[in-house]
Formats: sequence, C-alpha cells, structure tokens
Amino acid sequence: MSYFNVEKVKYEGPKSKNPFSFKYYNADEKINGKTMAEHLRFSVAYWHTFTEDLSDPFGVGTALRDWDSLDEMEKAKARVDAIFEFMDKTGIEYFCFHDVDIAPEGNTLEESNKNLDEIVELIKKKMNETGKKLLWNTTNNFTHERFVHGAATSSNADVFAYAAAKVKKSLEIAKTLGSENFVFWGGREGYESLLNTDMKLELDNLAKFFKMAIAYAEEIGYEGQFLIEPKPKEPTTHQYDTDVATSHAFLQKYDLDKHFKFNIEANHATLAGHSFQHELRYARDNQMLGSVDANQGHPQLGWDTDEFPTDFYDTTLAMYEILKNGGLAPGGLNFDAKPRRTSFKQEDLVLTHIAGMDAFALGLRVASKMIEDEFFEKIVEKKYSSFASGIGKQIVEGEVSFKDLENYALNLTTIDNESDHLEVIKSEINQYILNINNQ
Amino acid sequence: MSYFNVEKVKYEGPKSKNPFSFKYYNADEKINGKTMAEHLRFSVAYWHTFTEDLSDPFGVGTALRDWDSLDEMEKAKARVDAIFEFMDKTGIEYFCFHDVDIAPEGNTLEESNKNLDEIVELIKKKMNETGKKLLWNTTNNFTHERFVHGAATSSNADVFAYAAAKVKKSLEIAKTLGSENFVFWGGREGYESLLNTDMKLELDNLAKFFKMAIAYAEEIGYEGQFLIEPKPKEPTTHQYDTDVATSHAFLQKYDLDKHFKFNIEANHATLAGHSFQHELRYARDNQMLGSVDANQGHPQLGWDTDEFPTDFYDTTLAMYEILKNGGLAPGGLNFDAKPRRTSFKQEDLVLTHIAGMDAFALGLRVASKMIEDEFFEKIVEKKYSSFASGIGKQIVEGEVSFKDLENYALNLTTIDNESDHLEVIKSEINQYILNINNQ
Amino acid sequence: MSYFNVEKVKYEGPKSKNPFSFKYYNADEKINGKTMAEHLRFSVAYWHTFTEDLSDPFGVGTALRDWDSLDEMEKAKARVDAIFEFMDKTGIEYFCFHDVDIAPEGNTLEESNKNLDEIVELIKKKMNETGKKLLWNTTNNFTHERFVHGAATSSNADVFAYAAAKVKKSLEIAKTLGSENFVFWGGREGYESLLNTDMKLELDNLAKFFKMAIAYAEEIGYEGQFLIEPKPKEPTTHQYDTDVATSHAFLQKYDLDKHFKFNIEANHATLAGHSFQHELRYARDNQMLGSVDANQGHPQLGWDTDEFPTDFYDTTLAMYEILKNGGLAPGGLNFDAKPRRTSFKQEDLVLTHIAGMDAFALGLRVASKMIEDEFFEKIVEKKYSSFASGIGKQIVEGEVSFKDLENYALNLTTIDNESDHLEVIKSEINQYILNINNQ
Amino acid sequence: MSYFNVEKVKYEGPKSKNPFSFKYYNADEKINGKTMAEHLRFSVAYWHTFTEDLSDPFGVGTALRDWDSLDEMEKAKARVDAIFEFMDKTGIEYFCFHDVDIAPEGNTLEESNKNLDEIVELIKKKMNETGKKLLWNTTNNFTHERFVHGAATSSNADVFAYAAAKVKKSLEIAKTLGSENFVFWGGREGYESLLNTDMKLELDNLAKFFKMAIAYAEEIGYEGQFLIEPKPKEPTTHQYDTDVATSHAFLQKYDLDKHFKFNIEANHATLAGHSFQHELRYARDNQMLGSVDANQGHPQLGWDTDEFPTDFYDTTLAMYEILKNGGLAPGGLNFDAKPRRTSFKQEDLVLTHIAGMDAFALGLRVASKMIEDEFFEKIVEKKYSSFASGIGKQIVEGEVSFKDLENYALNLTTIDNESDHLEVIKSEINQYILNINNQ
Repeated sequence: MSYFNVEKVKYEGPKSKNPFSFKYYNADEKINGKTMAEHLRFSVAYWHTFTEDLSDPFGVGTALRDWDSLDEMEKAKARVDAIFEFMDKTGIEYFCFHDVDIAPEGNTLEESNKNLDEIVELIKKKMNETGKKLLWNTTNNFTHERFVHGAATSSNADVFAYAAAKVKKSLEIAKTLGSENFVFWGGREGYESLLNTDMKLELDNLAKFFKMAIAYAEEIGYEGQFLIEPKPKEPTTHQYDTDVATSHAFLQKYDLDKHFKFNIEANHATLAGHSFQHELRYARDNQMLGSVDANQGHPQLGWDTDEFPTDFYDTTLAMYEILKNGGLAPGGLNFDAKPRRTSFKQEDLVLTHIAGMDAFALGLRVASKMIEDEFFEKIVEKKYSSFASGIGKQIVEGEVSFKDLENYALNLTTIDNESDHLEVIKSEINQYILNINNQ
Repeated sequence: MSYFNVEKVKYEGPKSKNPFSFKYYNADEKINGKTMAEHLRFSVAYWHTFTEDLSDPFGVGTALRDWDSLDEMEKAKARVDAIFEFMDKTGIEYFCFHDVDIAPEGNTLEESNKNLDEIVELIKKKMNETGKKLLWNTTNNFTHERFVHGAATSSNADVFAYAAAKVKKSLEIAKTLGSENFVFWGGREGYESLLNTDMKLELDNLAKFFKMAIAYAEEIGYEGQFLIEPKPKEPTTHQYDTDVATSHAFLQKYDLDKHFKFNIEANHATLAGHSFQHELRYARDNQMLGSVDANQGHPQLGWDTDEFPTDFYDTTLAMYEILKNGGLAPGGLNFDAKPRRTSFKQEDLVLTHIAGMDAFALGLRVASKMIEDEFFEKIVEKKYSSFASGIGKQIVEGEVSFKDLENYALNLTTIDNESDHLEVIKSEINQYILNINNQ
Repeated sequence: MSYFNVEKVKYEGPKSKNPFSFKYYNADEKINGKTMAEHLRFSVAYWHTFTEDLSDPFGVGTALRDWDSLDEMEKAKARVDAIFEFMDKTGIEYFCFHDVDIAPEGNTLEESNKNLDEIVELIKKKMNETGKKLLWNTTNNFTHERFVHGAATSSNADVFAYAAAKVKKSLEIAKTLGSENFVFWGGREGYESLLNTDMKLELDNLAKFFKMAIAYAEEIGYEGQFLIEPKPKEPTTHQYDTDVATSHAFLQKYDLDKHFKFNIEANHATLAGHSFQHELRYARDNQMLGSVDANQGHPQLGWDTDEFPTDFYDTTLAMYEILKNGGLAPGGLNFDAKPRRTSFKQEDLVLTHIAGMDAFALGLRVASKMIEDEFFEKIVEKKYSSFASGIGKQIVEGEVSFKDLENYALNLTTIDNESDHLEVIKSEINQYILNINNQ
Repeated sequence: MSYFNVEKVKYEGPKSKNPFSFKYYNADEKINGKTMAEHLRFSVAYWHTFTEDLSDPFGVGTALRDWDSLDEMEKAKARVDAIFEFMDKTGIEYFCFHDVDIAPEGNTLEESNKNLDEIVELIKKKMNETGKKLLWNTTNNFTHERFVHGAATSSNADVFAYAAAKVKKSLEIAKTLGSENFVFWGGREGYESLLNTDMKLELDNLAKFFKMAIAYAEEIGYEGQFLIEPKPKEPTTHQYDTDVATSHAFLQKYDLDKHFKFNIEANHATLAGHSFQHELRYARDNQMLGSVDANQGHPQLGWDTDEFPTDFYDTTLAMYEILKNGGLAPGGLNFDAKPRRTSFKQEDLVLTHIAGMDAFALGLRVASKMIEDEFFEKIVEKKYSSFASGIGKQIVEGEVSFKDLENYALNLTTIDNESDHLEVIKSEINQYILNINNQ
C-alpha cells in the first residue's frame, strides 16, 4: 500500500512551478566539499507528521490520514510503513520519535514496553532495509495525566520512578536502533505556580534523574549524544530549561555540562524572548550546539505554533551558525513542525516538508557563499581590531590591571569610535540572498 | 557648503558592491506604466534625519552632524540647506516635518510663529528652486512639558487652546507650502492611568479639536488630505489612536470618517499586535489608506525602534497592498526611521535611506510581478468560489434568511472543505522574491 | 444522587478558615440598597465546569468527574443534574452554555437538534423547579472540523449555512429558556493568514450573518440582549472581534451598533494589550457594557489561561466600572474560568467558584465604598475643573474656533499644569482595600 | 535652606488620611525580633530622586526641582544637601548612586575624578553627621557617547580602559564611604545585533574586567559585596546579564560565582518574562540573593517603567523570599523608581517614597505573619511528603538507579496524584492581606 501518491520529489531548480519539486534542495550537489544532504541532515518528526491530528485548544483535529480508522496497534504499524515511504519519497535520511509516538501505551508499564518492543523490531527491520537512520529518540513524560505535577520534578515520588522507567526503556531503544542522539524535553519539568513549589528540591531531583540516565547509558554501552531542549513555558507556566543559558547554568551547577549538548528549537527561542540565532550562537560559543528543531513561530502569537520554516533570513543565519560550528553531526535538522490546521490533507505532509527543506537549502547556499567571502568575519575582524595589538591585546592576554588601564585612560586625549553601519550589513545580506540564484 | 560628500546616488543593479549605489531602486524605470519614483513617492523625515541626536533613555546622543555647534536659528537654516542637498543626492522627491523640527520654539507663541515664518520662507524658496515637494507636515504637540497631560485631550483647557493655536499655524504652513497631506499623531492623546482619567470627556474634546481643524482648513482653502497616525502606546500608556480599527471606530462615532484617512506606520502596527499588512489591508478595505510611515520594529523589543525597513517580506506585502490601493497618492512612503545609535556618522543618513529605498523598490518589483500574474487573486478566487454561485451567491446578495439556510443545511450530506496549502503559498512567495533578478 | 458532597456554602466572614465558606460574599447582605446577589449576578459556565477535561496542548485531561464513564446522552443528563445541584450548593443564580455543552452533536444536524431538544426540556424543568435562570446561551461554531476556515466567515458557503442553522436553533433555545442575553464569540471568525484571505468579503458576510440573526430573533419574538465577545487571537491568528473598539468600528460600519452590547472577558482584554478596566470603560462610555466573563490571565503567558479571578485590584476596578454602569443587568458576571490542570478534583469546582465569588464580592464592597466617598469622582472633578468654566467651558460647548483659541493662547503668559500624584491614588486604593474589613 | 517643606513623616496607621504619613511603615516597631527599619533597609536612589528630569523618548523633562537653575557643581552640592534632608524627613537610612549622579563629568577623566573627590568629601561629612549609610555605589558606563558600543564589552579597547578607570575610581569611593555593596549594571554590555558582534570575545573581556575589579578591591582592602544587576534588554537589544540564571551561567563559566551576588530589580524580572518572585527565589536557592531594586513595571508596556512599588501581592511575595533568605543585609531595598512624568512636583518625591515604603511595610507584615503560621511551609511539606520516606527518600539520597526505579514502577498498581488546590492558596493569601489590619 502507498500512502503518498507522489513520485520521489526531485530537484527542479528555482523556477519550477511544480509544488512537488525542490527549488533549492539538491541532495547530491556538493557545497564546499560536502553534499547538501550531508550538510543538512534533515529529519522527519514522527509526532507532527504521523500522529498529530491538528487539533487546537478550541477545536478537534482536522487532519485526514489514511490510518485514522485503524485500531491502535494496526495504526502504529501503518505509521511505520508510512514514515519509511515518506522518507523515501522526500529523500529525508533521518527520523525522530518519542516512545508514545511509535506504539500505544498499554494499561501497565509492562504492556507499554511490550508494544514498544513489537514496533521497535519493525522499525529496525525497515531501517536495515532502507538505510534510513534514527537522529534521536526521546521519552514523552508529559502527555499522560500521571505527569500532571511533572515527571523528574513531580512532587510524587512514584511518578519520578515511573518516568525513570520510561527513560530507561527509551535508552534501550536508542541502543537497539543506533540512535545518534538522545533528547530530553522537560515539558512538565517546571511549575504552575511558585506558591506551592519547592524549586530547589525539584531541580535537585532533576539533576539526580539526569545522573541516573548517564549511568544507565554507560551501563548498557549507549554512546549517543545527550541533548537538552530548552523551552521557557507551555505547557507549564515556567519551565526549568527556560533557554540555553538557563540550562547551561543548571548543567554547570550540577556538574553535568560535559554530558550534554543542546537541541535548539527556533520557536522556543522566540518564546524565550531571544532570536533563533542568539540561542545557536550561545550554544556554539560554548561547544554545546548539538542539534536543531527546525521550525518557526508566529511574530504575533504567544504560543508554540511549530510552523514549517520558510523565512530565508532565519534559515540563512541559522545555517551560518551551523556551518561555523562545523556542522551539526551527530545532530541534524529535525522538522519539529506541523502543517497549519487549514493544511489538513495527507499531501500537505509532503508539501510542507518541501517548503522547509527548500528554505534551509537556500539558507545553506547563502550562508556558504558568505563564509566563502568571509563576509561576517571581515566585519568582525575590523570592528574588534583594537584588541589585536597594543592595550587591547594586553587586555585580552590578561597582562593589565585597573591601575594600568587608568594610567592609559588618563593619557587618552580622544576616544574614536567607528560607526557600525548596521543597515548596510542588512542590505548586503539581502544582496547575498537575492543573488544566490544567479551568481 | 556641502553636507554630504557623495555623488548623486545612482542605480547600479543588484550585484553592485558600492554601498552608495541603488541595487533595486531605479527611479525612472517604468513598472506597469509608471516610473518607480511615481509608484514609491519616497519622503525624508526631517526629525529622524536632521534633528535626531540618537540619544536613548539610557544615553546621550551619538550623532555627529556638521550643524551641531551652530546656534538655534543658524542650525535651523543649515538643516534646510542640508535636507535639500540630501534630497538631491538621494533622488527623494518629498519631505515631511513637525513644526518644531524646522524652527526652534521661542519663549512665546508669537516668537515661535515668527521663527517658523522665517524658515518656511526659506523652505518655500528652496522648493521652488528644486521642485521638491512637501508630502505632509504636522504639529508636535507632545515634546514640550506643557503637554504633560496631553494636548487636545489635556485636562488643562489652556493647553487645549495652545495646541489649537499650534495646529492652526501648521495648517497655514501646509497651505503656504502646498503640503499634499496633513498628519495628526497624538503622542500625548491618551492616558497614563485610567484611575484619574475622564476618557469620555477627553475623546469628546479630541473630536471637537478635529472639527475645528476641518473648519479652519476649509476657511483658508487648504485642501490637503487629513491623516491620522495610529499608535497604541509610547509615550503614554494607552493612546487613543491605538490602531486603525480603533481610530476608525472613533471617526465613525463622531461622524469624522469622511474627512480622514490613515498614515500607517509599520512599527506602530507591530506594537499594536498586528502585522503591518493587516493595518494596510484594513485601511484599504475601507478606502482609508492614505500614506505610510516606512520603517520596521524589532521582534524582540517592546518599543518603537523606528528601524529603516530592510525586510523583503514586509516590503513585498506592503507594496502589494499599496498597488492594489491604486497607489498612495497624494500620500507616499515616508521614512519614519532613524539610523541605529551605533550608525552615528552623517554618511549613515545616506546609507540608511539607500537601504530603505532599495528594500521598498524590491518590494515594488516583486509585488508588481505577482499582480501581473494574479498570484494572490487566483488563490482567493479559488478559495471563495462557493460564494460565486448557488447558495453562496444568495448569501452575498442578501437573498436568504436563517430559515432558508437551515433548510439548505438540513439537506447537506457532507461538507467538503479544501486545504489551504498555506506553506506552499509561502514557498511560492520566496520564489517570487528570489527570481526577481532573473526572470 | 449527589455530585458535590458538601453543604450549601455559607458566608462565614473574612477570618473563616473553612475553605468551603464565603469570606466576603454574603448573598443577602444589602449594599447601597441592593443585595450582593442582585449586584453580582454570578453565573456558572457549563463548559468550564461541566464539560472541560483540563487537557492542554501537551497533555490529556486530568479532571476526575463522576460522569466520566457514562455514554454521551447519559452524561449530558447527569451534567444537568450536576449543574443544578452545583448552583444550589454555591448559591449561584445563573448559568451559561454553548449548544454543544449541553447535548452531544449527532451525525446529522437533525440528530443534533433532537439531542438538544431532549436536554433543553430537562433544563427547562429544572429551571422551573429551582428558579435558576439562563444568563445567556451561545452557539459553538468553532470546535467541529467543519469550521476549519471559519463559520460566518468561512470560505465555504455550505459552512456559512450550517453555522446559520446552528445559531437559529440556539435562538430558539434562548426563547424557550428565557435566556436574558445571547452571545456571539467568533472563535474561528478571523484568519490564519492574510496571504489567502479576502477580509472584506468575510466581514461583509459576518455582517450579513448578524443581520439574519437579528431578523430571526424578531421573527420569533426573542428579546434578549445580543452580545459580542471580543478576543484578539486564539484559536485563529487574528480574530475580527479583536477588542471592544475594533468591534465597535465593525458594528458602526454595518449599522449594527444599536443591536449589540459587549460581553467583556478579562483575559481577552489582556491578550489584546489592554487592561480589563480599559475594555469595561470603553464599553461603558458608549453605553455598550452588557455582560462580563469573569476570569483572569497570567501576566507571563501569551494565551487564554481562563484562571478564576482572585486579584483584588482587578475585581475592585471592574466593580467600579460596573456600578457606574448602573450594574450589568440583564447581563451578569459569568465565570468563564476553569480550575488549573493541577486542581483536578470535583470539589475544586466548588472551591474555585468560592475563590472567584469572594474576589468579586470584595471588589463590590471596596468599589461601593469608593463611590459612596466619591473617591474617583473628586479626583476627576478637580483634574478637569478648567473645563467647567471660562475658555474650557466654551471648548466643551463648541463655542470657539481655532482663531479664538489662538487669540486666547497668544495672551497666555504661563501655563500651569497640576501634578497628578498618581502614586498617592494607588496608595489610597490600597487603603480602601485593606480597610474594608474594619471600617 | 530646606528643600522639602514637610515635617518628618510619621506613622499614623492604616486609617490615616494624611498623604504625608505612613500607614503601614512604623520604623521602630518590632516584627519577629527586629525593627521594621532593620528588616527593610530602605534606600533612596540618587538618580531617580535627585538627577532625573522625567523626560521620555517623546518629551522633555517635566520635573520641577529647586536646583534646576544652578550651575553644575553648585547643583551637585545642592543635591547632597537635598538627599540628606530627604533621608531625614522620610526616615530612610541608606542611599545609592552612580558616579555621574553625584558630580558632573569633566572634560577629562582627571577633571571628572576631581569633581568626584570634592563631592565625596561633602557626602562623607554629611554621613558622619547624620549616621546615614551608603547601601551601594556603582559606575555609570552607559550614558556617555563613548560607550556607544559598550564598556567592558566595547569593540574599542580604549573604551574598555576608560571604563576600567571609572570603576577603579568608584571602588575607591566605595572604600572611602564604607559602601556596603558595589553594583555592576551593564546597560551597554550586550549587542545591538549579532550580525556584527563577537559575543565570545565580548564575554571573555567582561569576565576579565570583573576579575580586575575583584583584584583591585582586594588590593585596596574594599570588602563590600559585589552585585550584578540583571536586565534582558534596553538600552541594548540583548544584554548579556539577561536574568539571574543567565548571569549565573556566566559567573560559573568564568569561575566568578563566589565573588558575586545579585541585585534583583522587579521591573527587570518582568521584562525578562519572569515574575519578580521567580528571580528572588532562584537567587535565594543559590545563596546569591544580595539586594533588591524595589520598583514595578507596567503589565501592558514593554520597557522599563521604574514605577514605585504599590502592588501588595508583589511586595508580600518579595518579602516572603527576603525573610526566608534571612534578610538582605548587607543589601537592602533600594527604590529604583521614579515618579510618573505627570507627578512632577518636588513633593512627589516624598509622596512616592511613602507609597513604596508602605507597600513593602505591608508586605513585610503579611509575609511575617505567614511565616509565623508556616503557611507556605505546610503546603510544601504536604505536597512533597512522598520524598520524606520510602522510594522518595531513596531518590533524594541517591540510593537508587534506573533499574531499581523500573522494578518499583513495574509493581505500581496505581499512581495517585493530589490536587494542588492552587486557587484556594490564592484565596488564603488574600485573606492574609485583608486581615493584616485587624488580627
């Protein structure tokens, strides 16, 4: 059975009018020595693409899917077939999932684990057949009502234990399927209100939970990269992994920073009051940029809209950070994005991924050209040139004290600052984007 | 004396590396029968370009200007010379000002008016010599401490009178200089707190003020278009002209809507929680799109940053609305924008305008191509086709009642909605922008 | 069968430690000639209290309800019993519902209407037995997938017809049950994106829809007050009934303003960037304050949290506006509020309503005392005294022109503004609240 | 000469109608063993109270001050007299200043330092005479145009040196005046745009700057507490000391965390998307709560409004955190707050401080009563009781692994969570506040 009644999506170039073609993404085209596929490491998100029903807080799901009417285990199996067909048709090499995405929860933990085993086996077989790979898996410790007060930060010790058991199983799955990374998103790790929350105990517990996860991964010989995915709020009022810097403070405090990198989501960055680029840069500067959840938010909305990324400014600057990071591997670009509720047909799954892949492919092309030209590097080199010699160099090398600097300052007759001409830089970025088709 | 040590800025095309050239704006190039200059009607803002010092709430001005050290009236005269040179060099045909931008306030109203007369004379002479035109003028009834409680909505009747006298003078200047429009921005027309505000009295007074302005314009035979510029907040906590719809409600209530159109500012739209396009569309749909303050805000900041517009998405969609409006004339695109505080050199005034002009020129090129292709029109026609015949047509033509519709609905066996494929539309807009250089 | 295993909630005064008692709400206590119950006209919301499951976008429902396991029609009947018991126990006299709250939708419109008829009959019987009243009913034209593109503003004419049929039925129910008001909340009347929206056609259609509703109400002799409930966004990106002023503009444009008042929700006001008091004041000043959805939002969250109102500042200022409005009747204070997801027990329904009722009761006590003292009135009278005589009076009475005002202004030697001392006003409000228990 | 034509402000109790009296602040009244003055350690901010002119980005200053017409050094001396009179009249024991608040900058660094020396001498004399104390001083490295690109993070090494020289001088002043703390607020330490910023170099430089400051303080034997004051944005687009957690990450990374605590400002917390209580709690949990800038923001405005604190919910929860912290000493409650632009009279300085002092005094009374009753402590103890024994205790004590927890979870038959009844907690807090006058 076929779920996506389309040909394999092909690159047809920027003027193609065929919605089922790539305009900028040409998988095997080499850019600076690597293929676009190697650079971009696209991944499909099981949840948004295969289990999402496009409901919202004021309306039921609108998604029309071929597997809607099947019973739970049959549906789970159909989705496995569907995602591998989808990866084949779109040329996406990686996928990601939460435990509950791939198999239905049973009435007991034991039953849930049995369901998982059955589907994991199926997935493994498909992976072997197709060569598709698991970018990361994770544990959904937020949807079920047992997590009403959190998981690793629940006020209920039984829930902590249950959450631990679920992560244990997910680590085993990661090992079985050779998952290249393992993600923690703490959707319920935070508080509804400080009025009844022992934040210190909860964070201490969260650190203990992470340490047990590290220990268990070592025990079973799982060597994927651990990733934390920051988000400031939603579903809880305040989530502990607010943003990259906040999580960095937490990891340092509990001596966990060597074990984790970050999975950075564009829409989470904007909800936290940052630009996407800021979060990427912070992580990169600290050697903690691990992977990216590629999507975009809506500038007028205060919640996680998880739109497919189409803004070429965002994708260009994101790809700049990623290229300067030496790429994302073993991480990748996972489309943590869903079609709008008004794009409810099955073919929209293909169309929206094309939109996102093309936007990032364009970003790769532009950013790569900029790096080739040392566009940003020259700006920065010139701007900070005073730190390359003289008193500036002494400052950087730690050779001066306040007294030395006061002596120096007392002898300054004038201070000359340079204009940053920021508006020109923005215009030049526009030129890079507009000229990318006809260099 | 020359203030801008540059040649006249020329069009050099999209690949030029000369920062003092236009990449997309080619004044005399015809697009769909009109020159780009006729379409765009660019205007320079006296305040941001010639009186702004680039101070912010935490720092003094950084702007370095040739006229900084002159005394007040000499400075005023130097600025007149400078703006006409600036318009000549950049090829901008229009300018805009507040009364206090062009001449210093005196110790008395009489003295202020005398100062204005002197400079207006000078400006008129320059306009005659150069053919440059006044897009609009307005009255600054917000900077002086007398306006601490508002102007036309002040709790102090003396202030109302003073504000009226200032607008009277501005209308006379508008008449003298042939200003094509006259703008009201009520920076202090709003409240700090409702706890001590009689909102009803204040709004009644504001309406009276506008009626007096209309009467006086008629009396002196001034026929320029009156424009209201909405803004939700800043400097006051809540401004009465919050957004286009709120102002529309006010104008209708006081039977003033036939006398006004809107001057819509991008950054004010975003501060009000709307997209720029939304405000333009609302005004256009109500035949009230009069003029545009062309700038952009910063997505992470909650105040009016008045950045030069450089975002191609914004300029494309804005130009689409403007073209569908049949253009803006007698309004235009006024750069209500200032260089960043870090772009403090005099040459930055030229560079930033180039950035803004190029961004809107590109927007014009793309939007014009889209309209030629009926890109949006076809999407909308298809989407709403059910209203072109049958029950839909009857609804539109007012021929059915709830009873008729119930009868119709009771007989419906299924309801088929179409997917909007919004993500595809966004991808296609990207293609329009990216392909504009090489069609 | 009893659903709420508690006594009738009694007033025990501000020092009571019994969570199942009122601290400030004393139903029969007279304040300024009317009982507290008459002033406050509390209403319970069927949806939040009897059908809400406390799910959120990242988690399933946590609510534990006695009727969870019943089949749909049995559940509907159990809820009728439960809400009447609930009103009896809490002493709430009014309730509100959407059509789909009270009876399950059938497979056809006909079947849905049959279900409604059965439950409406039951409700009517209960109302007769208990004397409880329907504050308002409304139509849910947003949850079902058929409304994916809107209802009265859908791009699909069939959906317009279906929505009309549903409102027709709701108006008949309103007539049958003597509903004192009829509410329109346009949850899907707006757009996901302007890129594919004909806003003008959609708003024209919305106006036509309202006119048909008015005509049908007249036809069946339904005389309840029509109310529009503004909200800026969520679920759609931009909702047409953005805020009171925007809706006021719409109603005026289509000559509908005589037929509608507003149902103002606190949380919707804050989502629109206004204070709750602002929306109430705007409506009151325009004789359009009809009813209130009593809740509160969370200052750090960008979506509709629908919390029970507990903030004394908000309830005091809201009750001030309501008292100055001469009360809300035929409107009332409907608790459009739900327990937090972490307050999931059935008894929380009682406890949360006590919290909200006490907060508004305290607000009533404080606002009433302030009005008795003419607290705000004296502040305003003093502040605007310049408009009570002289030039100010002439302005207000429309006796002066810009020329007269210029003459007056030219003769002003100084302008003296008064300090507003706003901080003192805030302190005095604190005193009013803190002293309310021991005057 | 007297600047404040009022008596010493006295406590007159909650029913006083005298605006120049305290309603809740009774300096010598003991609460739980310490006087209210000892608990609250109020401080007046030199800048807002003695140099602020109440200008805003759209208007000149409105403040009327006796010293307005004096020349710069005379003005500086008058302000010294004024602040000590002010502290005497209001009973405030502490004050705070930036270097530029107390003495005008000269044309050279040398001249600036000379001006400082003269005024510091004067202040020291006054301190000795009156017993008033310096809570903290700091360096203004943001107002002058030389800091256009930052101070310790400037791209210009000369500016780094100049900034260092200014902090060196400030540390000497701190030593001379016995300042109990020393504050760093990095108003320009951040970026306008990432497009031209070397964030890593800038943060490395900032760390070096702090290390030099620590070294110099040690060298001169200054032992006051170093404090960092986080703020997310304004004036720069993104400030490095975004919030407490971000600054905590920075301090840990550079091994500086033992040398610093935080000076937490309410309005900065809300600009960062947090509640004030959150920032206090985070700091307290990490033993880094040093001092507080007591003010409040406006819920509808996106910039730093620096209002005097009057919200009793905020002051109650803040005082709860402060009391649980064992107080703030050597820190205190500094009123980093200014009168509204409409409260421009000199007497408003007294009136606004009374408003703020009373609000925090009330907060102290309520929080102290809550702690006496162990109100929050009992809630938390009950909520987390599962961690006090059994599997929970084993988790907390680090005695279990994922395997143990899985075994435990597999044997769980049900998981029982408790309702948090958050709404009841909010009602009970309301009762605490309302009953504080008549216990």
